[in-house]
Amino acid sequence: MKLLRVGPPGAEHPAVLGPDGAAYDLSGHTPEIDGRFLAGLDDAGRAALAAALAAGALPRLDLAGQRIGAPVARPGKVVGIGLNYRDHAAEAGMPAPSEPVVFLKPSNTVVGPDDEVLVPRGGEKTDYEVELAVVIGRTARYLESHREALDVIAGYAAVNDVTERAFQLERGGQWDKGKSAETFTPLGPWLVTADEVGDPQRLGLRLWVNGELRQDGNTSEMIFPVAELVRYVSRFMVLEPGDVIITGTPAGVTTGRPGTPFLKPSDVVEVEVDGLGRQRQVLGKA
Amino acid sequence: MKLLRVGPPGAEHPAVLGPDGAAYDLSGHTPEIDGRFLAGLDDAGRAALAAALAAGALPRLDLAGQRIGAPVARPGKVVGIGLNYRDHAAEAGMPAPSEPVVFLKPSNTVVGPDDEVLVPRGGEKTDYEVELAVVIGRTARYLESHREALDVIAGYAAVNDVTERAFQLERGGQWDKGKSAETFTPLGPWLVTADEVGDPQRLGLRLWVNGELRQDGNTSEMIFPVAELVRYVSRFMVLEPGDVIITGTPAGVTTGRPGTPFLKPSDVVEVEVDGLGRQRQVLGKA
Repeated sequence: MKLLRVGPPGAEHPAVLGPDGAAYDLSGHTPEIDGRFLAGLDDAGRAALAAALAAGALPRLDLAGQRIGAPVARPGKVVGIGLNYRDHAAEAGMPAPSEPVVFLKPSNTVVGPDDEVLVPRGGEKTDYEVELAVVIGRTARYLESHREALDVIAGYAAVNDVTERAFQLERGGQWDKGKSAETFTPLGPWLVTADEVGDPQRLGLRLWVNGELRQDGNTSEMIFPVAELVRYVSRFMVLEPGDVIITGTPAGVTTGRPGTPFLKPSDVVEVEVDGLGRQRQVLGKA
Repeated sequence: MKLLRVGPPGAEHPAVLGPDGAAYDLSGHTPEIDGRFLAGLDDAGRAALAAALAAGALPRLDLAGQRIGAPVARPGKVVGIGLNYRDHAAEAGMPAPSEPVVFLKPSNTVVGPDDEVLVPRGGEKTDYEVELAVVIGRTARYLESHREALDVIAGYAAVNDVTERAFQLERGGQWDKGKSAETFTPLGPWLVTADEVGDPQRLGLRLWVNGELRQDGNTSEMIFPVAELVRYVSRFMVLEPGDVIITGTPAGVTTGRPGTPFLKPSDVVEVEVDGLGRQRQVLGKA
């Protein structure tokens, strides 16, 4: 099942994609695609939605000319994982970590998949990172096993973990400073439920800048797989429905390509994850 | 004006302290003390509340036996500042920073001022940090001046920035890992509005463990004062009403006292900031 939010920022309608590829309005079922809704989206919840869809009980939404928002409203937190692909750690000049590196992004960095991304004022090294995002569906603390971890995942989405490298690495060493600017977390277009994605460790991830392929990886190359990340993070903080974990980026970021310019206004970034849809952001300036 | 939230976790009533020291129910004025309420708490908003209080229009709340919650519901983010007192940087064995060190804490770490604080599973070095918390009242991005910065502050509160040092410093280097455990941000008892606090750089901060005074500092000793912190942080992320910035701790944490044991279950931590009230936490185990 593919869930999405359609409409202007702050006034999105919850929707679901039908088997015909059209979007259908979920407003009659839930005011929002948020933690509360996702917490109820178990097998029975999905079956009820699928039945409503099959019965033609959901009004069709015309997507033409409509903005797509992030597929989760107001995540409680966005947890970042650093250096989770060996080739990216190498290009960053850092050792592959012996356990996951964890940072946080403010929730108000999350925007729609095709929204403008702003180079921050004073930014000199604004960079892209295609990643697999995990959306949490059940409260999780101190998970023991990978099975328990997979059980709390509501679904997956594509994400661009936009990063200002100078702020991240040259302004005191705590990465959050370079991860927190407005528009820095384009998420979506869809939240694809975990049952539909199946194994999250076989998804190709690609990113283009102005049409040039820059990143071309696969989640099979993660150092710590999704189940381990969710288990691990749950031992340091309480995960709640609607929380998002972004699971690290493969090689190919600007930092790893000496001589390549960082992002600048009017650049176009496109992001794609197998089965999770495609993003397109035009860069602007804050 | 002193605002507070009274009642069990998740079911707190918004309240205000009267000049008589009693609490009065604000439920008729606002469902919550949150970003939306604080955004409307300008001079006119405060005058209206004060008039209602003076007219006896607010029902009295009996505080006997009642829990006090954190004075802000669901902050959008909690921004931490590291090493902002010279004596604390020295005891941590780190150089005084040339610009603020910024990290983030998940919002769901925030608890009431007297709630139990849990040593996390696997935690070996759970430590305390008395701090001044700043609560934001207006959206702020790219502030230029200290005057603009002071203008977006709704008020202040006492906070204990509980930290697991082993997770913070010995597990990959990104501090968030040691700042994010459940119960790690006791906040309150009150949000004292900025007009009542006046100059935030003349407040004594004290912390006791089992009755022994461990920290005894003053906000006059901050390396970067409150106005500079708010201005600076607004250039790296968008601050919103209800967001909380915790402004760093003076010397005296356990790390700075070789031979002193870290916090353990049944320890009692007391926290006090001049004019902002007093906290008391009994330690437990997750």
